[in-house]
Amino acid sequence: MRSPIEEYLRTLHRELSGLDDGVPFQNIPAMAAADPDDFAICLATVDGHVYEIGDSRTEFTIQSISKPFTYGLALEDHGLDAVDRKIDVEPSGDAFNEISLARDTGRPANPMINAGAIAATSLIKGSGGRDGFARILDIHSRFAGRSLSVSERVFASEAATGFRNRALADLLRSFDIIEDDPAGPVENYFRQCSIQVDARDLALMGATLANGGRQPVTGEQVVDMETVQRMLSVMLTCGMYDDAGAWTSAVGLPAKSGVGGGLMAVLPGQLAISVYSPPLDRHGSSVRGIAATRRIAAEKSLHFVQAARIGRSAIREHYPITDAPSGVRRNQEAADVLTEHGHRAQLVELHGDLLFAGAESATRHVSSLPETVEILLLDVRKVDEVNDVALGIMEELQRSFETDGRRLAVIDDAGRISDVLCAGSTPLFPGSTEAIEWAEERLIRTHGRSGLIPDSAELPDFAALSPLTAEQIADLDDRMEDRTFEDGELIRRSGQKFGGVYFILSGDVAASTVRDGHRVRYTTLGPGMTFGEIALGGGAPVRVRAQGPVVLRVLTADAIERIEREDATLALALWKAVATDAYTRVEQNLQEVAIRVRI
Amino acid sequence: MRSPIEEYLRTLHRELSGLDDGVPFQNIPAMAAADPDDFAICLATVDGHVYEIGDSRTEFTIQSISKPFTYGLALEDHGLDAVDRKIDVEPSGDAFNEISLARDTGRPANPMINAGAIAATSLIKGSGGRDGFARILDIHSRFAGRSLSVSERVFASEAATGFRNRALADLLRSFDIIEDDPAGPVENYFRQCSIQVDARDLALMGATLANGGRQPVTGEQVVDMETVQRMLSVMLTCGMYDDAGAWTSAVGLPAKSGVGGGLMAVLPGQLAISVYSPPLDRHGSSVRGIAATRRIAAEKSLHFVQAARIGRSAIREHYPITDAPSGVRRNQEAADVLTEHGHRAQLVELHGDLLFAGAESATRHVSSLPETVEILLLDVRKVDEVNDVALGIMEELQRSFETDGRRLAVIDDAGRISDVLCAGSTPLFPGSTEAIEWAEERLIRTHGRSGLIPDSAELPDFAALSPLTAEQIADLDDRMEDRTFEDGELIRRSGQKFGGVYFILSGDVAASTVRDGHRVRYTTLGPGMTFGEIALGGGAPVRVRAQGPVVLRVLTADAIERIEREDATLALALWKAVATDAYTRVEQNLQEVAIRVRI
Repeated sequence: MRSPIEEYLRTLHRELSGLDDGVPFQNIPAMAAADPDDFAICLATVDGHVYEIGDSRTEFTIQSISKPFTYGLALEDHGLDAVDRKIDVEPSGDAFNEISLARDTGRPANPMINAGAIAATSLIKGSGGRDGFARILDIHSRFAGRSLSVSERVFASEAATGFRNRALADLLRSFDIIEDDPAGPVENYFRQCSIQVDARDLALMGATLANGGRQPVTGEQVVDMETVQRMLSVMLTCGMYDDAGAWTSAVGLPAKSGVGGGLMAVLPGQLAISVYSPPLDRHGSSVRGIAATRRIAAEKSLHFVQAARIGRSAIREHYPITDAPSGVRRNQEAADVLTEHGHRAQLVELHGDLLFAGAESATRHVSSLPETVEILLLDVRKVDEVNDVALGIMEELQRSFETDGRRLAVIDDAGRISDVLCAGSTPLFPGSTEAIEWAEERLIRTHGRSGLIPDSAELPDFAALSPLTAEQIADLDDRMEDRTFEDGELIRRSGQKFGGVYFILSGDVAASTVRDGHRVRYTTLGPGMTFGEIALGGGAPVRVRAQGPVVLRVLTADAIERIEREDATLALALWKAVATDAYTRVEQNLQEVAIRVRI
Repeated sequence: MRSPIEEYLRTLHRELSGLDDGVPFQNIPAMAAADPDDFAICLATVDGHVYEIGDSRTEFTIQSISKPFTYGLALEDHGLDAVDRKIDVEPSGDAFNEISLARDTGRPANPMINAGAIAATSLIKGSGGRDGFARILDIHSRFAGRSLSVSERVFASEAATGFRNRALADLLRSFDIIEDDPAGPVENYFRQCSIQVDARDLALMGATLANGGRQPVTGEQVVDMETVQRMLSVMLTCGMYDDAGAWTSAVGLPAKSGVGGGLMAVLPGQLAISVYSPPLDRHGSSVRGIAATRRIAAEKSLHFVQAARIGRSAIREHYPITDAPSGVRRNQEAADVLTEHGHRAQLVELHGDLLFAGAESATRHVSSLPETVEILLLDVRKVDEVNDVALGIMEELQRSFETDGRRLAVIDDAGRISDVLCAGSTPLFPGSTEAIEWAEERLIRTHGRSGLIPDSAELPDFAALSPLTAEQIADLDDRMEDRTFEDGELIRRSGQKFGGVYFILSGDVAASTVRDGHRVRYTTLGPGMTFGEIALGGGAPVRVRAQGPVVLRVLTADAIERIEREDATLALALWKAVATDAYTRVEQNLQEVAIRVRI
């Protein structure tokens, strides 16, 4: 089927093909002959997919679009401060070939005008056996993800006509902005402008910037985030020359155009757009390039103000654990403790991205909990992205909360948040039911008399057996056998036939299966709970293992068969009890995963 | 407990209190006496929370921070084009009080320098019985969320000393940028600069911009998104005067400072920072204001390049329905059809934000599905934010997919995506199990012989009864009664005692409960399925209703009691069957919600 994005770009390409304003760059003879009908639009994503419409594999010279990349290499070579001493980052309000040097120091206004770009090129020295230009060509190639080359014809033409740029270089030398013979840098600058790219290359070079400096196809980290931040900032404020303000207002994407007809625009974190069309406007930018980028940005809401999503609260749900009790059966006294003190344990569920703003709303919420809240269950399973700043804030939050003598527990699957927060003694639970059970037990131990929570269960305590009489339970007990397991020992696995019903007297058992090649724990059972009621068959392989030492009473399949033969009443009572217990759990499970629908 | 964010800001405030550079604005006598030790830092979020540290309720005059707001009012009054004809949006590279008019037209370079700001003020006319200045004061007040007033003392002082601004106004008049007597606008401009705000006001004014023009406390949409985009763009490129480029590079937040000592910076979609500290640097910006904002932006990764999250694929999971069969029991022939053709139905689960980039990755994925895929189940329950652009792309995707003769179905709770995609005949399911069952039935009808899927079930078809012999089933059948229900009719509700087991012969029934005040459907059952095995008690209120006409066979509680008395073998077989069926469902449910944990 046809991709709507490709259709959109194709329609845009067709519509803008009728836009015939402008002429190709005339100052350099080798470029004046460019075909004005050549037209490509590309869009590359941070995962490396490129939509290519039109003449996307036609090469042209990169010209001024090389400026941010060489500037980036200078930043990586010398650091921000050293480069800033040579080249300022202020928009000049002037055309690209204006002189724009500070009167006192000769410092060019920014690296996007020719003077600043030549200064940046002069900063690139040879290293590792390669001369300066080889390193410039190399970084361009690494951004593009393929080996680029230079058009010797355009280079010769640039070198033969570039007197204004030679003058700029000499002027920069006079101010000691260029410290050596300016002939070398200006020649490298001509070569750099003559690097041949196609629209696909430009899109991927831009996508590398959008992707924080990592080339999305090769996976190489070409420059670091600090360099990317500076490159994109300068492109936003100075990239479109004397039109930069109007560009930022209308388009709001860092961008760079070149007189070769190329244009590259970047939406940080998301994508890059490139256009190739040789006819230029009076600013020296591709007419169709400007038009296409403006339309895509406006029609797809890519302006930096619009692309910022309105931050929601990171809090998805918040309730005292009494709103969602674990379902563990308690004696009346323990239940009373929970009724009275249950509000002291609260569950807060976070979701969405946890960057500064998300972490802020989470900590604000937690900070405002009343002092009576002793236990906080932080459910972070629905959190998407987390950055270091947010992790730092969450750690601070944990520290503040726990130094007040209160306890935090985290509910998480695999994740950076629990790696950080649960590195010490803060417990981690895979699901809310387990966490709530833990919180309930803490509350009962803290606020009830000692001994209210048994570390083990006797058969009459089992919820599953509650419909049975004491006599029936004693009868069953006589027919059961003890089993003990060491930590980690396998108790049951799928493929085994029905082995009877297992009653957990002490310890915990965990059931796991395999999903997407990962072993996944899906339930943990403790004293007073049963398992094994059905044969584990079909579907993904299931294993039930002891977590720590475990003591079980087992009503084996043979024992059940004997009951069915010998005592029909007991057999019926047993199966009715098991069925009722099972359906109670079905109903609990269904409601736990209930979703909101219009009905 | 202490909020980590507040602690952070408090520490920053303490550390920067030692920064003693600069002096308060001296040119206006009424301002020269400002206390240089006054110092406030505020941070306001798009949900209207304000962190306030220091002298956050000390009033000072807004000065140049009024410029973007009056400009915004001019944009709302006249539209972008009319305002652009009077005031350009290009950074001037000059100080705030430079003349910076275009030589030919006299158009000021941008609305953040005095000339442009006075031009913007001149565009504000009286309306609705209020003069121009009353409207200027009003829009500032609406941004702040409270009634602001003017310092008459500072106004008098500004008016008595503002000869340079009068000169600018006269110059603007000479170019017809100001069309009436310039005395009125320049007086309004002095008044506007003398509006009194405190740091909390500035933070909320910025948060209104961050929030797309909606004041987060009052909820008023003060200006529209197009105006906000322009205001923030101009603040980013021109807001910090001749320091704008360095500001954008290092801080990357649209910002505005005023000689009154205020500074406001905005992270679109997220928050705003404000600082008040009178001592100014040589650019006329608060020294501590600049320092605090730079540190917060750097330390909390708020630069527009860093705050952009790297777009992930919107695809969370993708699998053929054969990987997660509905569990509906089929006859062998139907099961064979699914084995052979199950790959023709695929489920794609989306997550995260669905702005352009997310929608792009979703459509790319769907567009690349092989032609053999006839049915696409699109699960959008985990999608966070959706914008109009993404909705448009999803609609295009639907159109492309469905015109190829293929069927789309959506899995969603309440949401904008299903509102749009399911407006026509595209079915909507609340959960994946229901959607997969629908897909299976379509595949069986399309690729199997007719009649393979019965619209109704007979008792021997019921999975729950499969362990019983034909004779036992016939015996049960004799003891059951028929019940029929109309569409929407209530079949059972919680609080009723155990009413027996319900066998669905034809039609669908839906079980719902209440969560967070919303009625929530949590399961839908069809022919061949059973319900009612336990009394519905405790927890949230449950209702089971007919969806369309429904025919049931019911084994009532009385009938079951009779069986238990009269036929112990049948009773045992029945309860064993029910228990096994129930535990099969427990196991399915548990595994369906399984989560990945390290074990």
